[in-house]
Amino acid sequence: MPVLRFDPTTSDWVVFAPSRKLRPHDGIPKSAAEPAAVTVAANCPFCAGNEALTPPEIYSIPNPQGGESRWRVRVIPNKFPALRIEESPARLTDGGMFQSMGGCGAHEVIVESPDHSRHLSQQPPEQIEAVLRALQWRYQDLMRDPRFQTVVIFKNHGSEAGTSLPHPHWQLIATPIVPRLLRMKHFEASEYFDRTGDCLYCVLAHEELKAGRRIVARNEHFVAFMPFASHCPFETWILPLQHQASFKLVDAERLWALSMLLKEVLLKLCTALGDPAYNLTINDVPRGDEDKEYFLWHIRIQPRLSTPAGFELGSGMSINTVFPEDAAAFLGEVPIAKTA
Amino acid sequence: MPVLRFDPTTSDWVVFAPSRKLRPHDGIPKSAAEPAAVTVAANCPFCAGNEALTPPEIYSIPNPQGGESRWRVRVIPNKFPALRIEESPARLTDGGMFQSMGGCGAHEVIVESPDHSRHLSQQPPEQIEAVLRALQWRYQDLMRDPRFQTVVIFKNHGSEAGTSLPHPHWQLIATPIVPRLLRMKHFEASEYFDRTGDCLYCVLAHEELKAGRRIVARNEHFVAFMPFASHCPFETWILPLQHQASFKLVDAERLWALSMLLKEVLLKLCTALGDPAYNLTINDVPRGDEDKEYFLWHIRIQPRLSTPAGFELGSGMSINTVFPEDAAAFLGEVPIAKTA
Repeated sequence: MPVLRFDPTTSDWVVFAPSRKLRPHDGIPKSAAEPAAVTVAANCPFCAGNEALTPPEIYSIPNPQGGESRWRVRVIPNKFPALRIEESPARLTDGGMFQSMGGCGAHEVIVESPDHSRHLSQQPPEQIEAVLRALQWRYQDLMRDPRFQTVVIFKNHGSEAGTSLPHPHWQLIATPIVPRLLRMKHFEASEYFDRTGDCLYCVLAHEELKAGRRIVARNEHFVAFMPFASHCPFETWILPLQHQASFKLVDAERLWALSMLLKEVLLKLCTALGDPAYNLTINDVPRGDEDKEYFLWHIRIQPRLSTPAGFELGSGMSINTVFPEDAAAFLGEVPIAKTA
Repeated sequence: MPVLRFDPTTSDWVVFAPSRKLRPHDGIPKSAAEPAAVTVAANCPFCAGNEALTPPEIYSIPNPQGGESRWRVRVIPNKFPALRIEESPARLTDGGMFQSMGGCGAHEVIVESPDHSRHLSQQPPEQIEAVLRALQWRYQDLMRDPRFQTVVIFKNHGSEAGTSLPHPHWQLIATPIVPRLLRMKHFEASEYFDRTGDCLYCVLAHEELKAGRRIVARNEHFVAFMPFASHCPFETWILPLQHQASFKLVDAERLWALSMLLKEVLLKLCTALGDPAYNLTINDVPRGDEDKEYFLWHIRIQPRLSTPAGFELGSGMSINTVFPEDAAAFLGEVPIAKTA
């Protein structure tokens, strides 16, 4: 029987229609056949030894062990940037319907490791922490440019998730405006804060912990759960357990805790679903709201197991075929190999 | 050089990054290899002769010529409904974050013709008109149920657009709430109307006609153009030239004009892009606003030529690699076979 669930973070209703089912136990589409694992690929611009194939490096974390690669994590400009630091954010208008502005911003790539085929879930927590540190450092640095209003951090894994280069990497785009989805999430959270005096996301994390049925993993500083009104099957959020508006300000102890939890969550998802394509995004506050009480930064992982079609495009409503309780239970049943 | 353009219908900024290019002249991904054209497929529940494979028929337009099939257009309940007429729209809440309601609504399939392989663009305008009439009739009928707030009409073409059954069909979902994307479009249009006294979409159509560079086709009653801030390559809108809030109320003369224009637009898109997958959606007003001045019903056609990735999912902003002027010019250059 179909059911609608309300997402208080966006004021969306999500349709749950489990009879159109992608059941956890069958029919999970696998991502394209896995290529044989290789450490270095000849023409991959992100592999160690191929550094000359990329634009000049912005930042790197050196490899303390020496060895094949001089770096552990490497940050470079995107060769085909969506937004560029050279443009101006000046608005141009014809006085009517047609308003534009320069594509002002920044678009960087964070190469996760020199290893061409090793997934993030297979990396040791120390390597994941190095990636998170590089992201945080770039975020802090880009926000020194007063033209940038937000930095959107994301990772695409698998071609169904829009990756063009298989070598594991993250991206980061600084934008000259606050994108509407974020604006809307900030708006809903501010309204909730004004009404109740509480952070919507802190309350949500608390209630999910109390309910217990949708928890994927937790540690001292973070909790991962599948939200009550998940927009897609196996959608997973990671929230800090202490209030903090921006990822930019997470301290070393919490960054380490996050690395451990992120590894555990990805390992569970990848094992249970057979290496699905997924998008991982960080939602954060706009410039100037880093110390505010209304918003909690958080990570959203959205496996690409289904294709949004006309109904979703025409209405903005999602149809989800798997209840998050069922997805979380399914994940709990899958034995995880505790490698690396 | 990247540029941002403002979409006044949603208050979104869209990133245009043509250097990450899908140029009109090359690199257009074709949809999966076209299967050999067949009139009737053995196990297809939408083919003439296989009517017993579907739930009981809701409505059909009889075939005046008689022949193979007794019907020209056939409406049936979706066998795997996202929403069901039997459910109650009563809200259930735990007093905290977890609110739900019954999956109350309706989900119907409109089989475009008995022909298994003939695309909508290849149908004679009379057949397209019959489909539009059936959609309109079902829309009117479903809105007699006071629990339904909107009816979302859409068509998915090709597997990349989320079709599971290849036999050409439309769908229609009645919803017990106003979906957020529509709510937002209504809100932006109401604000514009309050400020200016004009319908945002009527002004937009007028300005696009004046600019001329993004027009795809027009006739006495409708105009098709690629919007200034298109969210994806080759996105095409069809707008009525006289104000009308709801598709429900379009008269016979205009329905015929729309059939002619829709055929022309789809023929151009399919010829230029090599039968791309696409989603077609109708955006309309909620219950009770059918005679209002703030909103103009319209059709959006979104070819599925690119994959939204982490940036889009994390920010709600689109990255478009083709300027609508270039896309419209490209369409204008392609010779169209004028087959019925």
